[in-house]
Amino acid sequence: MPRCLLILNAGSSSLKFAVFRADKGLLRLAFGAVSRIGRGRADLAMASDMPRRAPGHRAVSAPDHARALTLVIKAILPLTGEDGLAAIGHRIVHGGGRYTAPQKVTAAMLEQLRQFSVFDPEHLPAELSLIATLRARFPGLPQIACFDTAFHRDLPRVARLLPIPRRFEKKGVRRYGFHGLSYAYLMEELRRLDPAAAKGRVILAHLGNGASLAAVHRGRSFDTSMGLTPAAGLVMGTRTGDLDPGLFSFLARTGNLTAARFDRIVNHESGLLGISGTSADMRDLLAREARDGSAADAVALFCYQAKKWIGSYAAALGGLDTLVFAGGIGENAPVVRERICDGLGFLGLTLDRKRNAQSAPLISKGASRVAVRVIRTDEELMIARSVTRLLSR
Amino acid sequence: MPRCLLILNAGSSSLKFAVFRADKGLLRLAFGAVSRIGRGRADLAMASDMPRRAPGHRAVSAPDHARALTLVIKAILPLTGEDGLAAIGHRIVHGGGRYTAPQKVTAAMLEQLRQFSVFDPEHLPAELSLIATLRARFPGLPQIACFDTAFHRDLPRVARLLPIPRRFEKKGVRRYGFHGLSYAYLMEELRRLDPAAAKGRVILAHLGNGASLAAVHRGRSFDTSMGLTPAAGLVMGTRTGDLDPGLFSFLARTGNLTAARFDRIVNHESGLLGISGTSADMRDLLAREARDGSAADAVALFCYQAKKWIGSYAAALGGLDTLVFAGGIGENAPVVRERICDGLGFLGLTLDRKRNAQSAPLISKGASRVAVRVIRTDEELMIARSVTRLLSR
Repeated sequence: MPRCLLILNAGSSSLKFAVFRADKGLLRLAFGAVSRIGRGRADLAMASDMPRRAPGHRAVSAPDHARALTLVIKAILPLTGEDGLAAIGHRIVHGGGRYTAPQKVTAAMLEQLRQFSVFDPEHLPAELSLIATLRARFPGLPQIACFDTAFHRDLPRVARLLPIPRRFEKKGVRRYGFHGLSYAYLMEELRRLDPAAAKGRVILAHLGNGASLAAVHRGRSFDTSMGLTPAAGLVMGTRTGDLDPGLFSFLARTGNLTAARFDRIVNHESGLLGISGTSADMRDLLAREARDGSAADAVALFCYQAKKWIGSYAAALGGLDTLVFAGGIGENAPVVRERICDGLGFLGLTLDRKRNAQSAPLISKGASRVAVRVIRTDEELMIARSVTRLLSR
Repeated sequence: MPRCLLILNAGSSSLKFAVFRADKGLLRLAFGAVSRIGRGRADLAMASDMPRRAPGHRAVSAPDHARALTLVIKAILPLTGEDGLAAIGHRIVHGGGRYTAPQKVTAAMLEQLRQFSVFDPEHLPAELSLIATLRARFPGLPQIACFDTAFHRDLPRVARLLPIPRRFEKKGVRRYGFHGLSYAYLMEELRRLDPAAAKGRVILAHLGNGASLAAVHRGRSFDTSMGLTPAAGLVMGTRTGDLDPGLFSFLARTGNLTAARFDRIVNHESGLLGISGTSADMRDLLAREARDGSAADAVALFCYQAKKWIGSYAAALGGLDTLVFAGGIGENAPVVRERICDGLGFLGLTLDRKRNAQSAPLISKGASRVAVRVIRTDEELMIARSVTRLLSR
């Protein structure tokens, strides 16, 4: 059996996984996800590349991430063998101000991450529970933490600063930014496709259920829309994005809203779901927008805000050379890309409608000064690459 | 004695006033302000144009707006005579969804505005107390309410929508936008200076202690940075502007922060004051930035955010024809304007450094496709014009 890497990418109620051969080619053997963790009947989906097998689904019981992990291990061991794992790579959402590169998990790191959980109580505790479960199951197997914040380690001071009293900075309250593994992957792909462009002024738009944008200059993160938490920036599937700070006081005054309830609203009941009143899923909304004004509102606000973020980052970068769309919406919704780019001709950007309709790798016209690309992002592969690089040092 | 208009513009701790001749020329006779209302020793400043007299200051006792108003009336009556007032015009910060044009104050309106106070408990109650005081002092004298939200009455739906659950919209929770009297004045001036430009794509940047921007298309408000409340948008003297909604939960979790305390922080302790740790006043910060890193941070964040808002609105408008700077900072801080415009060449905008240093009316180069203007805004004159137009109908 080949030596393999298991890659884990835990969301608040999901656990994505992938298995790669632990050699330079990083051939993917299988991938899948447990979804609806902790929400009654969960779902385990798995597909394999070697041998090729389409995704199979089955209903499972996964009351928490540790139980979901047990199911994943059971599903992948026939592929890897009991001793076939060489290492495990994790996406860790928040590395605080401390972790700016992939690192082997140590007891000291776990303690530190436990302290960072206050920044992201929704994701970090689940990620820590996975690491603990794996340490017990595979003692001695190296586990590598790859941080979603690390890509933004070079954010200029002006992009890190929040407009609040200075004393909070000492407590680590600043912009961190997220989606860093996706952004790192997109930049590696862009370097491969067009090395000169990757050194220029780039905007990366990771538009999925969670959505953010990053301005990149000379390969470094220059600004990004998520902040201290992943609830900031652009409107998302269920999150608000940036908000009028007076809104909280208004709701507290008029509706006796507690902090916990506010947190639930802005993270889970807002965004596309809140505006449409029916769905957080862009596919549903696009299918219904012609006859459902609220669905149309949600789509329109998403596209309008994304357009404005692009304008904002073009101003920050002093112009734009490359725009990259990625993520579930960014890769698969031509009409959303078209509406976002509509009116951005002043940036020197002209979409090729036909290529855009095909979600081609390059969707701008030949004469467009700004190259517009669609790149299928792959956070799990980025983690696998990071693990390989770290272990081969 | 000529018939006069008294114009009142109440802030949370200030009361600006001006007296105009109530004829077509609207000659200003005097103007001034009571500041530091309710904060120990207040200050009454007054200058007169006819006869011309430089501002004189005196310490006064003004525990509330009603008492400040009594001082103002006492100060202006020698100019107007006891029966010299023809009408009184008020800036009313929030007209809710209802008041989209200047209107005579009626009992029904007062009742309605009392209900809107929930949107702006910091300004509306003081404004209502002024109206009540004047009704008692000058019964029968028409009082005209001019709404700071009215300029934004035509905001497209996508600019009004907040990314929160739909049910809140029914309660009037949406973007209203403010600084509308200033914006209306700036657009009247722009129409006078360049009628064609006023029909084009315009960004108005009202940069003062409170600061906001508006995108204007064909003379109508197309988008604006303030929202349900004036705490939204760009970073300001003491307000945060838009914020990561996760910040509140974080602070509530880690510091037992109440809603009222949060409200005080984001409205009065943040922005330039919070970042610099020393001053909300851009003049202080500019004077100290070379030797004070925190002051420099505050200035840098302000300029950087304003630049990004301009890029964002250029994207919303599909390009830009005219940029107007106004407000205390916008009119008087060449270095701030220069830093904001730095790197906006991609918009077709080139500043003329010499004209900018002089705060000339037109500060872009002759070859600049985007005209950049400095217009001294005058909310009181805008109110006086509105009052005259309404009464002469």
